[in-house]
Amino acid sequence: MSVKGVAIYTFLSENKEEISIQENEEVVIFEENSMDGWVLGENSRGERGLFPKSYVEIIRTRSDSNVTDCSISPVGSLGNDSPYLPSTPNTSLNSGKIYDEDYYDYWDDWDDRSTVVDDADHTSSTGANGHIFQVPPSSNPNVHYRSKSVTGQDSMASSRKGSMVGRNLNRFSSFVRSGVEAFVLGDVPMMAKIAESYTIEMGPLGPQWKANPRPFICSIEDPTKQTKFKGIKTYISYRVTPSHTGRPVYRRYKHFDWLYNRLLHKFTVISVPHLPEKQATGRFEEDFIEKRKRRLILWMNHMTSHPVLSQYEGFEHFLMCADDKQWKLGKRRAEKDEMVGAHFMLTLQIPNDHQDLQDVEERVDNFKSFAKKMDDSVMQLTHVASELVRKHLGGFRKEFQRLGNAFQSISQAFTLDPPYKSDALNSAISHTGRTYENIGELFAEQPKYDLFQMLDKLSLYQGLLANFPDIIHLQKGAFAKVKESQRMSDEGKMDQDEADGIRKRCRTVGFALQAEMSHFHQQREVDFKDMMQAYLREQIAFYQRVVQQLERTLRMYDGL
Amino acid sequence: MSVKGVAIYTFLSENKEEISIQENEEVVIFEENSMDGWVLGENSRGERGLFPKSYVEIIRTRSDSNVTDCSISPVGSLGNDSPYLPSTPNTSLNSGKIYDEDYYDYWDDWDDRSTVVDDADHTSSTGANGHIFQVPPSSNPNVHYRSKSVTGQDSMASSRKGSMVGRNLNRFSSFVRSGVEAFVLGDVPMMAKIAESYTIEMGPLGPQWKANPRPFICSIEDPTKQTKFKGIKTYISYRVTPSHTGRPVYRRYKHFDWLYNRLLHKFTVISVPHLPEKQATGRFEEDFIEKRKRRLILWMNHMTSHPVLSQYEGFEHFLMCADDKQWKLGKRRAEKDEMVGAHFMLTLQIPNDHQDLQDVEERVDNFKSFAKKMDDSVMQLTHVASELVRKHLGGFRKEFQRLGNAFQSISQAFTLDPPYKSDALNSAISHTGRTYENIGELFAEQPKYDLFQMLDKLSLYQGLLANFPDIIHLQKGAFAKVKESQRMSDEGKMDQDEADGIRKRCRTVGFALQAEMSHFHQQREVDFKDMMQAYLREQIAFYQRVVQQLERTLRMYDGL
Repeated sequence: MSVKGVAIYTFLSENKEEISIQENEEVVIFEENSMDGWVLGENSRGERGLFPKSYVEIIRTRSDSNVTDCSISPVGSLGNDSPYLPSTPNTSLNSGKIYDEDYYDYWDDWDDRSTVVDDADHTSSTGANGHIFQVPPSSNPNVHYRSKSVTGQDSMASSRKGSMVGRNLNRFSSFVRSGVEAFVLGDVPMMAKIAESYTIEMGPLGPQWKANPRPFICSIEDPTKQTKFKGIKTYISYRVTPSHTGRPVYRRYKHFDWLYNRLLHKFTVISVPHLPEKQATGRFEEDFIEKRKRRLILWMNHMTSHPVLSQYEGFEHFLMCADDKQWKLGKRRAEKDEMVGAHFMLTLQIPNDHQDLQDVEERVDNFKSFAKKMDDSVMQLTHVASELVRKHLGGFRKEFQRLGNAFQSISQAFTLDPPYKSDALNSAISHTGRTYENIGELFAEQPKYDLFQMLDKLSLYQGLLANFPDIIHLQKGAFAKVKESQRMSDEGKMDQDEADGIRKRCRTVGFALQAEMSHFHQQREVDFKDMMQAYLREQIAFYQRVVQQLERTLRMYDGL
Repeated sequence: MSVKGVAIYTFLSENKEEISIQENEEVVIFEENSMDGWVLGENSRGERGLFPKSYVEIIRTRSDSNVTDCSISPVGSLGNDSPYLPSTPNTSLNSGKIYDEDYYDYWDDWDDRSTVVDDADHTSSTGANGHIFQVPPSSNPNVHYRSKSVTGQDSMASSRKGSMVGRNLNRFSSFVRSGVEAFVLGDVPMMAKIAESYTIEMGPLGPQWKANPRPFICSIEDPTKQTKFKGIKTYISYRVTPSHTGRPVYRRYKHFDWLYNRLLHKFTVISVPHLPEKQATGRFEEDFIEKRKRRLILWMNHMTSHPVLSQYEGFEHFLMCADDKQWKLGKRRAEKDEMVGAHFMLTLQIPNDHQDLQDVEERVDNFKSFAKKMDDSVMQLTHVASELVRKHLGGFRKEFQRLGNAFQSISQAFTLDPPYKSDALNSAISHTGRTYENIGELFAEQPKYDLFQMLDKLSLYQGLLANFPDIIHLQKGAFAKVKESQRMSDEGKMDQDEADGIRKRCRTVGFALQAEMSHFHQQREVDFKDMMQAYLREQIAFYQRVVQQLERTLRMYDGL
């Protein structure tokens, strides 16, 4: 079923499968429910191809039901020039288009009134009925999006509005998108009372997040297949038990996905761990469920270990709410949270310690090199480990099974000349054959105990590392604004006060980034130590099992 | 250098590379020194291609030196209708052609007067100067020749001569070739005094060779490269030390080859172990020398463990003679041995126990099935083990090295952000990387300790098993003669005495074959038990080494 839409941004095709669309151009979308943020459609010039779903608004005719709660506008205060944020009914109404109530239902589908397709595996940027929720491609956990470096982002914008320092033309720059530009430029007004507060303190190695005063962990267990609508709909429910309450709640992947999207919204400068990949087919297969569970556990561990993320109210709601009505209320509250994106920066308490901006820049550059190399080597290890899994399941198993078969075959031959059939020897050789067949199976089983866990952790880190280019970009953008404003101040084109304000707010961005870098390092040290130890322990146990099998087999030859 | 020759048998080409030659046809041979029993030549019709070297006699012009010892005719008494035996100067003179004295020199090249090409790697069927020594293809240890089953071998021959029972037309039948046909038909006269005697006794499982009363073993050690003619000629000399003398003698591969050819000549119905393969190039490379040594040791073990072969005078000479002159004399004596082939059968002492011919036939059939299946499974295991070697040296090593590299790469990344470089962890991870690189090397080294030995033994058995179709054939041929003679006797066409004689001699063949089968079984039981035990022990040691390396590495993470 094709629908009409309007391009809300200009998109220039870069590959032959893609088509360009102009802002305000009418387009036709052939297939709304895309998996990876792209849709197939046709532009007004009749060209057919792919373009990003988030670049278009779908035009719907007024539905029978009315929009019941127009006041819900979680991010309305930020204006709608940030594609990072969902377009709201507010803006939709402004543009004369009407969104039906399903828009809210997607974010409120606790009771699963939504359609069958909503079960976890649509993209996070799409509402249950394919409505637009404008999230940039990089927020899609399916895609480990590497942001292209935006050239010229620091150049003066030709269209100025309000602030003395130029705005970035590229609305997709993470600097702009995240609201950090607005924050640095002082466009985000300080609010009267802010309930939330996250403190950055000076640690021995530099700025760091103040630890969560009420640390906790959280288990994810017992993925269970549930059905409803008389079996038409099937989904997996996980038992989620935070240690500080000890009370289990039951959550589906789509609830994780809701939480994840809240986190993306809110936490500028923090590397929000990606959710485990979606899988279009076979998502109820045992292996997939097991893998998703393992990866959700790692995701959860990262969440609970993060001083800021672990204290997020929406997360608390996710972990504790066991009541349907309360769930809906809590969701709406979280969605109405104003302290997201640029505003989140206002919640940060930074130490008074002086930091030379140049030193900070150098720190960031070091981290950048480190993160790039780590990203590469995590990729390399992922590749090697995946290949090893393949070898374990294929080549290694096959070689040992072939050896086992060949021994069996020898032992069979030895039975064929009865007077000389040497029963004890034959049975020992035949047993050796079975042993090697077993060893083949041990090889095939082994990845479950070691390589899979390694790959899980590497996948988490791939996701975390993929966020850093954007986060580092924020710092770079903020620095550029400081330099620019200082130059303007020097040239008498800007009050020194305003320049000082920019410099001060840039300090906040710098502290936050350093705290996040520090947290990442601490965490990766723990995680990689655990990963390596666990791997080595399982490897030792594996080779010991092989030795035991062989020793038992060798004893069969004693006294022959 | 091309030479002329005369076809002594008709050969019909079966492949397009081959050409047909007719008995008595003149041929030209372009390259005498072939490696595998085939020569490139041209027949009288001008066709060029390959034909078996053993099917032609090379015509040489009289050499300057005279044939000094025309009386030497090791096998003259058997006539020259057996291509298994060398054509002798006798027959050559009869046909008006003359062989030069180099013919003898090939069997007498202790002092290495022969040319450079003679160093071990010419085929055993070729004299030092490329002279013909007519050995059928299957006696070439390079070729594990599977004799084609000769159809119609038991049919009555149209050209009868002498005996009442028909001779076989197919001169290549092992039955004919080995002289067993002649023996069974009573064409081999009993000799006045026979110095040698090998006894077959009834064991618990049937006829068996009486054990060598003076059992011994023999070591082969210290392959040493020797040169002569100022380095023009290079060869490997082995120190051979039999346990009953304790005195080492030094032997080259060609001496083994001489001995091997004597054994082939003499020992009808015995499976003479093939010598380790020849290798045309790189034969002084360390690995090849090591491999040949290991396989010569296995060959020697089989020789010394065989009750008949171990007592052979020529073998004794090979093991003990340390004097040049004595060596020559002993060689000539061995070559003049008359008790070879058919005559060897006269040296066998069999028990009086009655054996029903049909029972023997059944025993032989069982053995035949067993030997075929064993041959197949030895081949299968050889294939699997060879492939495993390849995997150890290639795939396995590479996988572990890649894993090691990836770990190293992770540890390198971790050093790039100095304040957080976590030295102890990095060094542990880097050490883990090196450990896996070492494990890769352990995998690559391992075949030296286990699979190579297994392959050596399998190769010996491939050779032994390859002899059995021919040996079993002897028994089949003899049985057929018994049945035929009995029928003729029943029809009054043959004296009962003659038929009884044939039956009696067939008993000898049957006893000998059963004794050989029994010896083979005993030996393979010991050999395969040893092989499996040795393999398992080395495998256990290997995996234990891996465990140790991993355990040592794991300890580096303690207290991090």
